Amino acid sequence: MTEDFRALGKRLSNWGRWDSDGRRDERGTTNLLTPERLVAAAGLVRDGKIFDLGIPFGPGGPQPGGGRINPVLLRAETGDDQNFPGAFHFADDYVFMPLQSASQWDGLAHVYYDELLYNGFPAADVGPHGARHLSIEHQAKGIAGRGVLLDVARHRDVDWLQAGEAIGPDELDAVAAAQHVEVRAGDIVAVRTGWRRKFLVEQDARSFMAGEPGLGLACCEWLREHDVAAVCSDNWAIEVLPGEVEGEVMPVHMVLIRDLGMTLGEILDFEELAGDCAADGRYEFFFAAPPIKFRRGLGSPVNPLAMK
Amino acid sequence: MTEDFRALGKRLSNWGRWDSDGRRDERGTTNLLTPERLVAAAGLVRDGKIFDLGIPFGPGGPQPGGGRINPVLLRAETGDDQNFPGAFHFADDYVFMPLQSASQWDGLAHVYYDELLYNGFPAADVGPHGARHLSIEHQAKGIAGRGVLLDVARHRDVDWLQAGEAIGPDELDAVAAAQHVEVRAGDIVAVRTGWRRKFLVEQDARSFMAGEPGLGLACCEWLREHDVAAVCSDNWAIEVLPGEVEGEVMPVHMVLIRDLGMTLGEILDFEELAGDCAADGRYEFFFAAPPIKFRRGLGSPVNPLAMK
Amino acid sequence: MTEDFRALGKRLSNWGRWDSDGRRDERGTTNLLTPERLVAAAGLVRDGKIFDLGIPFGPGGPQPGGGRINPVLLRAETGDDQNFPGAFHFADDYVFMPLQSASQWDGLAHVYYDELLYNGFPAADVGPHGARHLSIEHQAKGIAGRGVLLDVARHRDVDWLQAGEAIGPDELDAVAAAQHVEVRAGDIVAVRTGWRRKFLVEQDARSFMAGEPGLGLACCEWLREHDVAAVCSDNWAIEVLPGEVEGEVMPVHMVLIRDLGMTLGEILDFEELAGDCAADGRYEFFFAAPPIKFRRGLGSPVNPLAMK
Amino acid sequence: MTEDFRALGKRLSNWGRWDSDGRRDERGTTNLLTPERLVAAAGLVRDGKIFDLGIPFGPGGPQPGGGRINPVLLRAETGDDQNFPGAFHFADDYVFMPLQSASQWDGLAHVYYDELLYNGFPAADVGPHGARHLSIEHQAKGIAGRGVLLDVARHRDVDWLQAGEAIGPDELDAVAAAQHVEVRAGDIVAVRTGWRRKFLVEQDARSFMAGEPGLGLACCEWLREHDVAAVCSDNWAIEVLPGEVEGEVMPVHMVLIRDLGMTLGEILDFEELAGDCAADGRYEFFFAAPPIKFRRGLGSPVNPLAMK
Repeated sequence: MTEDFRALGKRLSNWGRWDSDGRRDERGTTNLLTPERLVAAAGLVRDGKIFDLGIPFGPGGPQPGGGRINPVLLRAETGDDQNFPGAFHFADDYVFMPLQSASQWDGLAHVYYDELLYNGFPAADVGPHGARHLSIEHQAKGIAGRGVLLDVARHRDVDWLQAGEAIGPDELDAVAAAQHVEVRAGDIVAVRTGWRRKFLVEQDARSFMAGEPGLGLACCEWLREHDVAAVCSDNWAIEVLPGEVEGEVMPVHMVLIRDLGMTLGEILDFEELAGDCAADGRYEFFFAAPPIKFRRGLGSPVNPLAMK
Repeated sequence: MTEDFRALGKRLSNWGRWDSDGRRDERGTTNLLTPERLVAAAGLVRDGKIFDLGIPFGPGGPQPGGGRINPVLLRAETGDDQNFPGAFHFADDYVFMPLQSASQWDGLAHVYYDELLYNGFPAADVGPHGARHLSIEHQAKGIAGRGVLLDVARHRDVDWLQAGEAIGPDELDAVAAAQHVEVRAGDIVAVRTGWRRKFLVEQDARSFMAGEPGLGLACCEWLREHDVAAVCSDNWAIEVLPGEVEGEVMPVHMVLIRDLGMTLGEILDFEELAGDCAADGRYEFFFAAPPIKFRRGLGSPVNPLAMK
Repeated sequence: MTEDFRALGKRLSNWGRWDSDGRRDERGTTNLLTPERLVAAAGLVRDGKIFDLGIPFGPGGPQPGGGRINPVLLRAETGDDQNFPGAFHFADDYVFMPLQSASQWDGLAHVYYDELLYNGFPAADVGPHGARHLSIEHQAKGIAGRGVLLDVARHRDVDWLQAGEAIGPDELDAVAAAQHVEVRAGDIVAVRTGWRRKFLVEQDARSFMAGEPGLGLACCEWLREHDVAAVCSDNWAIEVLPGEVEGEVMPVHMVLIRDLGMTLGEILDFEELAGDCAADGRYEFFFAAPPIKFRRGLGSPVNPLAMK
Repeated sequence: MTEDFRALGKRLSNWGRWDSDGRRDERGTTNLLTPERLVAAAGLVRDGKIFDLGIPFGPGGPQPGGGRINPVLLRAETGDDQNFPGAFHFADDYVFMPLQSASQWDGLAHVYYDELLYNGFPAADVGPHGARHLSIEHQAKGIAGRGVLLDVARHRDVDWLQAGEAIGPDELDAVAAAQHVEVRAGDIVAVRTGWRRKFLVEQDARSFMAGEPGLGLACCEWLREHDVAAVCSDNWAIEVLPGEVEGEVMPVHMVLIRDLGMTLGEILDFEELAGDCAADGRYEFFFAAPPIKFRRGLGSPVNPLAMK
């Protein structure tokens, strides 16, 4: 039986853990990205290979419309109809987009329940002017460290898991063992479900968003026990959808973001990276994914780099 | 006397240099970010210090209005007025912004003259639908490598240089020598003029944009000779403004972007990094600044990380 | 056999017709909205009934995504998180939308062929900065006059015509005759195909946009002979789609906008008005539909009023 | 001494006045736009003259930046880079704008105090998804009726009144008397302060927004006694700013919108109309200003037509 998500959240809570000098922490598990770990992680760049994990931003993305849309890019200048002295011409573009429309970090103010955000900040800290606390700006000096890919789809030998298929802690352990990689404190864990491949094959935004395979609620404890700094996936919500908890929406989000203070990376593309990891047998890498510093932002678009 | 910018551009041109297999290069000088250099650069992460070089995106930014505006952030969801089953609440934001409004990479389709873009692509490749070639997507696997800060303002012992003050190649050499740092092939060079500090002190967008200190035209040759992979600055256009060439606008942009194929990083904040470099005497670091992969985009917002 | 659209356009052309004092006309057929006709049209307001012909702007609109999207409304202020002295609270909203996404006027710079816009203005007058000539601003003092509804769907006794069904001049005459209404010079003609009803019933944006019933090419001559000031419809492009001319897209648009200089009103809702006209047998009314004065705009959202 | 704004609001309140069939009114004073009055107003169109009272929307508008910006127009299509079969080319534009940035109607959900909106709707009806009640959609069948211009600036024989100069009820009466026009129930009253002329002369958005001449609090009673259907002005907030009530912001807004349920028209341009009224001595006209039907919108851009 699934543990009550509130009880689980309370048991795994990181509230107060990184407070210091009377200042309440607004960074959460990325506090685990310590200087020592950064140095060690940089040492993983051995072959000079680099993989970009962000998807393209623009038309053709995974948003079917509704609450979120794909980024709309428009040009303010194309070089035409300009009358500068001399030879100069330039082109400029604008974008209108939900910060949560494509590859993204979910900040710690993105989700709450029972009127409290992570670390006890009141829900009212999020309002029409954005996040007064816990905004994505607090992740500005990151998110960089040791990345570990857990390729669940490959381990299951499928192109992708199906919507509604939950991944449990045992499977994460089994995948890691099969890949000969250890998940350590301060790691950024990337879980490949194949959901991005499904989109690349089907080009069907509606189907991509209708549900997804992903982490089950029990993985929250696994992530906490391993003291993971951040978790990311190639699906759009990290967690299995429809979820496992009757009558609750996004329980994994609620526990990870609100109780653990964990920043989530969504709608990433691990296809090229996964192929390389399978080829060279090395599933660890240096991971650098700086969010854009949106003032009071609830999240940020991102293009993470994995370097081996 | 200043060399004619066209003659200079032709002399320094990288057109054709990285073409291969009959495929015309669309990446330019970031081709110099080779695997070997990436590995070596990662080795510069020794203390685990990390500096974020992006400025905040939102109101209060450096755009006074006109062709570009500061990013406008709005909330689609705040957690209020939601009726999910159970406890879940979430908040989501949208942004409307010029991709060139704050910390940014200028892609290679951003500037042209004489109807040609970098590597001979026709100007018509940039139009209402964006850049058919040379879009910022071609920089997706980057921009990461060895970064070197040249702190011109500190070397001159001023808070900031004045608008219209040009920096020449000799001064770049002098700064590097004084800092005991060598600029090598494949480096990402960061030039600090103090112009960001000026903005932080004065909070005057109009004055920030009215002109700036920056690289003079002769620095193009210096950047080419050193085979620099990218150049960035704390001003908004890399180059001195008003410029040195009578009757021409942005000659350094024209030569660097269009002739050398060099990606430019603008409106960065080196204040904290510069303080640290001065303190520990180490002006080199690992630099990772992935652009967001905007389809056919002319540039990208960015938050570069400098890691030491 | 359908006449060649270029020949037809040339034959019906209004180019030069309203030029005066050496100034080339930028207003087109709305020049037919003369003071005398305005006075007469206002006299049609006899019962004090008023009908709004614009559709709602926002989510749930007829755009399935792609080149155009439904208007996205977001709140900058909701009254929360404000600290004015005293009691004051206010709410403010932003919109991001294509000007052609819902009920709209197509301005005269919206369409061209053979490198020329209406009245011989060069196509290059439309560019990244909008329309240098023929912008929607030229319709600012309008569009107001005598409106006539031609309810083709009711005349055929169907809920709606099918996509691809063309309406011809004879049918327009037959509908007018059956309705006992005469179309006169300077009228604004509203053609009801039932396509809006289809959308209201089916709520299927994709189907709404996939094609439509509408005016056939021969109606261009009818509109010119009657010297109509503007034409509008409840479909999204006035004309039948797929169209009647092999190898050409939107031939009616090309002839009406580019050759006749006729402003088109699209995606209107005549449902309530049509019911009233059928009930009282009066298919003429005062029509007032001022466009918003978008600088250099190619069109404008609109909410036309029909008053009887 | 100025009456307490709450007492005044309570005394003048229209709450409940137009409720019917157990349905709480959401339209307010535009209920006064009755069929009889519409017919009579249309009779004012005698000469066929037409005046557009909206200002241009786009760059160069009156917003200096900050909470509101001028409309940003961008092109999605310019006709370039299109490959339709045949001859067709088209151009399309997008706009991003605050609905309150230029000529606009303030809807009844725009302002509240003491946690209540007009007619007792709770403030919580306005939230991140817009206005659940009292949205601008309720004004869709309007706003049309008899318009009366009160040209205060001309009456004072000045180009414009100064910021902070309040207009009182006696002055409104004096202006009407001097103009030989009577304000009647159901009228739309347009108050000209000259503030638009100031902007046209000075082109200084900061100065335009820093304060303004306008209606004093006592005018609320005058507007209620005359049973005016709507009030509009050439300034940006109808009321004098800084206001007359110590410690309160926008007291006239609070009483008119929240207590009277009056829709306000702001940032209009009466310059041409005023010249004509002075010339022919006729200050009454048919006024038609349909708002765009923004779903749950708090206001709407508008281009009112005055017809004589």
